[in-house]
Amino acid sequence: MKVTVWNENQHEKSLPKVTELYPGGIHEYIAGFLKADDVEVRTATLDDPECGLTDEVLADTDVLVWWGHMAHDKVPDEVVERVFKYVMSGMGFVALHSAHHSKIFRKLMGTTGNLKWRDGARERIWCIKPNHPIAEGVPETFALEEEEMYGEPFDIADPQEVIFIGWFNGGEVFRSGCTWVKGHGRVFYFQPGHETNPSFRNENVQKIIKNGVKWACPVRKNIVLDCPHVAPLENIEE
Amino acid sequence: MKVTVWNENQHEKSLPKVTELYPGGIHEYIAGFLKADDVEVRTATLDDPECGLTDEVLADTDVLVWWGHMAHDKVPDEVVERVFKYVMSGMGFVALHSAHHSKIFRKLMGTTGNLKWRDGARERIWCIKPNHPIAEGVPETFALEEEEMYGEPFDIADPQEVIFIGWFNGGEVFRSGCTWVKGHGRVFYFQPGHETNPSFRNENVQKIIKNGVKWACPVRKNIVLDCPHVAPLENIEE
Amino acid sequence: MKVTVWNENQHEKSLPKVTELYPGGIHEYIAGFLKADDVEVRTATLDDPECGLTDEVLADTDVLVWWGHMAHDKVPDEVVERVFKYVMSGMGFVALHSAHHSKIFRKLMGTTGNLKWRDGARERIWCIKPNHPIAEGVPETFALEEEEMYGEPFDIADPQEVIFIGWFNGGEVFRSGCTWVKGHGRVFYFQPGHETNPSFRNENVQKIIKNGVKWACPVRKNIVLDCPHVAPLENIEE
Amino acid sequence: MKVTVWNENQHEKSLPKVTELYPGGIHEYIAGFLKADDVEVRTATLDDPECGLTDEVLADTDVLVWWGHMAHDKVPDEVVERVFKYVMSGMGFVALHSAHHSKIFRKLMGTTGNLKWRDGARERIWCIKPNHPIAEGVPETFALEEEEMYGEPFDIADPQEVIFIGWFNGGEVFRSGCTWVKGHGRVFYFQPGHETNPSFRNENVQKIIKNGVKWACPVRKNIVLDCPHVAPLENIEE
Repeated sequence: MKVTVWNENQHEKSLPKVTELYPGGIHEYIAGFLKADDVEVRTATLDDPECGLTDEVLADTDVLVWWGHMAHDKVPDEVVERVFKYVMSGMGFVALHSAHHSKIFRKLMGTTGNLKWRDGARERIWCIKPNHPIAEGVPETFALEEEEMYGEPFDIADPQEVIFIGWFNGGEVFRSGCTWVKGHGRVFYFQPGHETNPSFRNENVQKIIKNGVKWACPVRKNIVLDCPHVAPLENIEE
Repeated sequence: MKVTVWNENQHEKSLPKVTELYPGGIHEYIAGFLKADDVEVRTATLDDPECGLTDEVLADTDVLVWWGHMAHDKVPDEVVERVFKYVMSGMGFVALHSAHHSKIFRKLMGTTGNLKWRDGARERIWCIKPNHPIAEGVPETFALEEEEMYGEPFDIADPQEVIFIGWFNGGEVFRSGCTWVKGHGRVFYFQPGHETNPSFRNENVQKIIKNGVKWACPVRKNIVLDCPHVAPLENIEE
Repeated sequence: MKVTVWNENQHEKSLPKVTELYPGGIHEYIAGFLKADDVEVRTATLDDPECGLTDEVLADTDVLVWWGHMAHDKVPDEVVERVFKYVMSGMGFVALHSAHHSKIFRKLMGTTGNLKWRDGARERIWCIKPNHPIAEGVPETFALEEEEMYGEPFDIADPQEVIFIGWFNGGEVFRSGCTWVKGHGRVFYFQPGHETNPSFRNENVQKIIKNGVKWACPVRKNIVLDCPHVAPLENIEE
Repeated sequence: MKVTVWNENQHEKSLPKVTELYPGGIHEYIAGFLKADDVEVRTATLDDPECGLTDEVLADTDVLVWWGHMAHDKVPDEVVERVFKYVMSGMGFVALHSAHHSKIFRKLMGTTGNLKWRDGARERIWCIKPNHPIAEGVPETFALEEEEMYGEPFDIADPQEVIFIGWFNGGEVFRSGCTWVKGHGRVFYFQPGHETNPSFRNENVQKIIKNGVKWACPVRKNIVLDCPHVAPLENIEE
């Protein structure tokens, strides 16, 4: 399996806390825990030419992981269209945390991606589908002492499955882990991962992202997208 | 629209608090707020012959509302089969609170209906689908100072829509308002309504139940259930 | 209820058969059968300034019906964004036939809208959810002697409900009637309606479109779209 | 992975054609093509004590495959309850063809399982989700020259995913391959497989059943089913 981890890599330049938590940036940290004998991982960022997401890279990517927050609008539309095309063609897509407002996630959802938010909450995550492949090895519930609150209503397409629901100490709830199939691509959204919180260091968060990447891996890739005129297959007497 | 409100009516005999809150029993109280110029409501209880759910009554019912808790097993299997048949044929079904473990709800779900529970919680309900007919006039969020906690994982069939999610002060979450289509019948489950809590007196709870009953009302009723051998409709040359 | 019927109105200028079937154009014909005592209908076309879809018109529209085919690309992106915003805010949207490839439908789906196609087929439509409000009064099956074949795989977001499946005499099948909720808006797609076939004159097709418009009508409209920073609602001791 | 193939094994006694097609019976034939280095397969039939489905067997089964037709009622209710319990606890379940009317499938669906039927049709199967694991290696469409027609409306719970739709030469359509999650168990229904037709000898049908079994294999098994009273997890100041 070949994974590309994309990070806008902007907070890393101004907030020391981010690189303290995640040396090398969020992308390198995530790449680090995703790497395995059968998982090859590359990274790409906003500062790379074409955001590092050329046709060559995407055609060779099984699953694209996306983290972005303050610079969604800096991602050129043609890069968004290209990523969209590859998801339609079968590439898996895992959107993390503030990627809910990225151009590509909103385009895949066909919705605004809006939600409620507040820094500095305590979150408790519940696994409501313990037998889903993305929940493998994950406990029924676990807490994140410090996470950004994301609250409902969350404006997303109806998920195929809601696997995790988040509880926040300010009284909010959130569909924290959801799946969709869009075109030929499998899409997973997972909510924790604010840049100044240690969520990506949490063992359960890491398991869920690893499982999500594995789940999103296509059984076919680079499927031709067309809208063909076709001849009849059956000889029907009219 | 013709509605039948069924209540096992057992707690009413032993817990004075129930009839203080709901004079005449939970069934009479719910019937009271459902009645309207275009809504005819009758009630039925466990103590009635055949639980008050004869073929005559069910054939004349658009939507059946169900409350039960301590006496699920006392409902005879033939009554359960009969109610099931009418739901399959188009009758709407609204299951309230502890009806999650009733024979008929479990039969409709094809699951155990299991959940976590604890008396004496504070609940906050979030409406995550504000434009759903069942959410008409309901605020984005409202609190119930005293309700029984029902917590995930809730073992139900995947809902068609989750309209309400509950937050509890002990750290739990719950899919508190869900819809399904089963056979030809529309089914709505709503979680609040513990017998010793005043939830059915809450204005928003009443609105939701009224909306749910209206939503579950069939466009066709008493649809024939069969598995017919049929002739071809098209003349296909083989 | 206020309905706006949008038609690109281009085939009407070059193919006499279209205006023979649908005098005044497809939009006027559809508007004609939608009009009722409690349904006010206006029309709009590609040739109108801003496609006839100004903020003033959309803010005053409960449900927008869309027919387009040869000129999808002529609809300006800002009009598409505007319509999208109103669907997100609660406006219903009914997409007919070749609208599957319109910019707005593809944007709402988050997919390509691709399918297979061929002119001149015989279609048989099956109602698989006879108790859905959109199926009210519609028979279990009916035939269209002449329709364009649209075949699977149809690249759409997973529907909330598939209400109609089409059978074609060349061996194809199609999810011909599907619903979604996108943002706060309810969306219905219905497949028949090729410009040179008399499908919109068919009594069942008319019933389905009328029912679809009624189903898509919002219970709330012009809902504010935002992503607010919010204060806690509950006083949680940490 | 450990698979148990259950077959009522009754037609095999009276219709020579069945054992000509499937020597040893349908169960042995299916077991034959499911066996692999990492897949251990046992069989069980109606004539075995307790239908061959004891606690010992089920506790040691990852996925149960079910074929039944003329003797659904002969399966004792306690066996049905036991199989149900194991599906709720995580065991996968693959229902083939006429299993649509088996007690256990109807119990899992919470519906009647009704459909239309006719012997001796030509079927064409369309794969509408080519990137689903159950569709791995399966072509977009393939024909079965001889199969029993099963037609919509098919009274099932709303599927999580419809992967295959069938076209029949008499004008019918059918949701031929569907998935659900019920309790902790993953359920797949696949329509071809009439006892006197050679469908189980078809390479694509075999691929789909193999893929379906693999998909239904649980990530956890024998999960405890309970409805526990629980203490609060969070210290909430009221």
